[in-house]
Amino acid sequence: MPHPAAPAADLDAPAVTQALARFVATHPSGGWDAAVEAEAHRTLLNWVGCAIGAAQHEAVSMALAACQVLQPAPQAAVLGRRERVDMGSAALVNGIASHTFDFDDTHLKTIIHPAGPVASALLALGEHLGSSGRELIDALVLGVDVSCRLGNMVYPDHYDRGWHITGSTGGLGAAAGCARLLGLDEWHTQMALGIAASQPVGLREQFGSMTKPLHPGAAARSGLMAALLAQQGFTASPRAIEAPRGWAQVVSTKFDWSEATHDLGQRFEISMNSYKPFACGIVIHPSIEACVRLREQGITPDLIERIELRVHPLVLELTGKREPVDGLQAKFSVFHGCAAGLMFGRAGEAEFADDVVLRADVIELRRRVNVHVWPGIAEDAVDLTAWLMDGREVKVTVLHAAGSSSNPMSDAALDAKFYQLVEPMVGANRAWSLAAWCRGAAQQANLRQLTALATD
Amino acid sequence: MPHPAAPAADLDAPAVTQALARFVATHPSGGWDAAVEAEAHRTLLNWVGCAIGAAQHEAVSMALAACQVLQPAPQAAVLGRRERVDMGSAALVNGIASHTFDFDDTHLKTIIHPAGPVASALLALGEHLGSSGRELIDALVLGVDVSCRLGNMVYPDHYDRGWHITGSTGGLGAAAGCARLLGLDEWHTQMALGIAASQPVGLREQFGSMTKPLHPGAAARSGLMAALLAQQGFTASPRAIEAPRGWAQVVSTKFDWSEATHDLGQRFEISMNSYKPFACGIVIHPSIEACVRLREQGITPDLIERIELRVHPLVLELTGKREPVDGLQAKFSVFHGCAAGLMFGRAGEAEFADDVVLRADVIELRRRVNVHVWPGIAEDAVDLTAWLMDGREVKVTVLHAAGSSSNPMSDAALDAKFYQLVEPMVGANRAWSLAAWCRGAAQQANLRQLTALATD
Repeated sequence: MPHPAAPAADLDAPAVTQALARFVATHPSGGWDAAVEAEAHRTLLNWVGCAIGAAQHEAVSMALAACQVLQPAPQAAVLGRRERVDMGSAALVNGIASHTFDFDDTHLKTIIHPAGPVASALLALGEHLGSSGRELIDALVLGVDVSCRLGNMVYPDHYDRGWHITGSTGGLGAAAGCARLLGLDEWHTQMALGIAASQPVGLREQFGSMTKPLHPGAAARSGLMAALLAQQGFTASPRAIEAPRGWAQVVSTKFDWSEATHDLGQRFEISMNSYKPFACGIVIHPSIEACVRLREQGITPDLIERIELRVHPLVLELTGKREPVDGLQAKFSVFHGCAAGLMFGRAGEAEFADDVVLRADVIELRRRVNVHVWPGIAEDAVDLTAWLMDGREVKVTVLHAAGSSSNPMSDAALDAKFYQLVEPMVGANRAWSLAAWCRGAAQQANLRQLTALATD
Repeated sequence: MPHPAAPAADLDAPAVTQALARFVATHPSGGWDAAVEAEAHRTLLNWVGCAIGAAQHEAVSMALAACQVLQPAPQAAVLGRRERVDMGSAALVNGIASHTFDFDDTHLKTIIHPAGPVASALLALGEHLGSSGRELIDALVLGVDVSCRLGNMVYPDHYDRGWHITGSTGGLGAAAGCARLLGLDEWHTQMALGIAASQPVGLREQFGSMTKPLHPGAAARSGLMAALLAQQGFTASPRAIEAPRGWAQVVSTKFDWSEATHDLGQRFEISMNSYKPFACGIVIHPSIEACVRLREQGITPDLIERIELRVHPLVLELTGKREPVDGLQAKFSVFHGCAAGLMFGRAGEAEFADDVVLRADVIELRRRVNVHVWPGIAEDAVDLTAWLMDGREVKVTVLHAAGSSSNPMSDAALDAKFYQLVEPMVGANRAWSLAAWCRGAAQQANLRQLTALATD
């Protein structure tokens, strides 16, 4: 071992792990305003919709099959399916399902999809415990607060380095939420956070493969297990998040400790959660919305000679795939997103199906879309010019795409998205009951009502 | 997301993931020389001994209790105990047990403890499959080769940054070994490696807590699950290890790709595996051995005024705890290690028991030990001077501590260590049968013979 000790970047970090543990263990039930409470319910609704919608996707079926090799006890539901598995496997599989369509929620400051790891762990554990809806909402608000605050602490350096921040912060959020649901005290919650800190999940290299949605699933499972281990007395470093060789300093070069604790218990990150109207990477939402608006003006594909878009640089960096060959690739193609918006007026999961992606008219339309990086344009904005066959030029400017923080999806739009995802899987009646359960979650007696509706 | 893309350190890395997958999937059974084969058997014996020895430790009992909350199917053995659990939990718990005493094997070039993640996953899966001893040894050699080669690729920068390299490489080694045991082809093995790459485990901040031994256990479990997922067709990036946002470039600033593939299939890292004669951090082994040798000269504690040691700088950095208060802390105390060597002539797990650490005569003897960093001394060497009550001065120099690559433990010493660990748990007859099974592993018909001996 003839090497020097690595320079410790910050030997005097504040006690972040302890502060978060105390907050999670002691903050009063429902101790936030109505806007936070409402956003928690919207987060739950959207997460349930995404998980049920993808329940029969092959990634979910494969993960479930792998879990079944372990002959799991039927403790917990897989949303949208009949199979029951142990809590850990349910957290894994529901976490995978909820992110499979890339249609889940986004904490825009950090691009974290917070519900996947946290809600997947909570529902699995809470169903087994017979927890109430109130307990679920409390644990969801607190768990999401932990993962998003840790995200704020290390973003963007941590993400730029290559971590899929949803998975790398998600295990800590899931551990926090599960510790709350289990009723652990401050010390045991601190141990749960410490155990989870050693298990960050997720490389950005996996984008475009099934391992991307595995990240929130694996984070959900490891966070749940961290809480169960802590409950038994298993120990970890009480400074696992902030120590020189702890989580933040190992996985990031930026660590703004104040983000973890500033206004803790006053400001809640879940209130900044957002939901996608389109089933793909959020950076191409403004472009799709511009195309939908163009179509709403009566400008159908046959009238269009070509489309020119001016976009934020990340659009081509993340979603620049010109000729996608399947649905998964199409989610990373601004060209396909625009073609879907122009041709169908929407870009839900159905418009990213393999057969749609390979349709000759869709391919041809994609090729009429041109995208140019425009330095200075905001990430939720886009500038579209359509050159028509008749020589006309039509402009559409989107300043704040639907789903962005300045233009959040309405409750009605979120309901419509939910039904679009859930009805094909469980029918209209059950979809209505599920939505009603989620909208009134805090008043519901037992999570088993939700899982019964989502699986029978 | 107003941030630039992180600079990619190496856009043109060779296809490491594919090369390792091809090697694991296609290398012939037993395709190595007798020395490699012998070291694989020694690795197995030592790992079984360490896992059984710690089977009743509270960290193991707590982890097992947490797994039992999931009501696991009785698929696989927990070594040294009666309980049976699912394969994933068995991999986790045996991985924890084998590292709990800090008495397991060490790949000295990287300080990886390779058997913990790899063998724990293999035994759990192989018992369930009914694999032969030959299949186990093959998968062990190949899995250890993968994790240690990846370790060579990123060491020391990766370790210096704060990663516990045993866990952060171990999931990949476990995935490789399990893929081999499952008979996966090159492509599916590549996917298993890709899935495992997203789940590095282990922060050095956890040293001194139960989460340290959790690292090899969690790596064993995630590697096993990665192989089971790949078997079902689950996908990952085929360049998950080497891509700009893949494993190596995310978790390390050094990545020497040639280490992954140079002499692949010719040179085997398991042949460089070593075993600890003392149940503590390897950096203090030379100091303990010097004290044991002093005692063998008849110089008992009552004759000693004080001991002066000159040591490698890492000794005080990693194990400088002057006044340990329990067994776990004592493992990170060169002072306690020396006191044990002087007083008992050995430093097995019994000499790190809490009550020994707190004995007044041991405390008093520890305080007579003085340790000085001596730049330039090798890490496996030490220079001891004993000042005796009668005014005499006695010197002991250890050039290569037992267990180092220049002075490996003999088969007889390894057997003695095994019996010391295993006999108190399962009795002398069964310990003898277990040792015989491990020594002849490659000729054994079924791993269930081993687990039956280790658990009944």
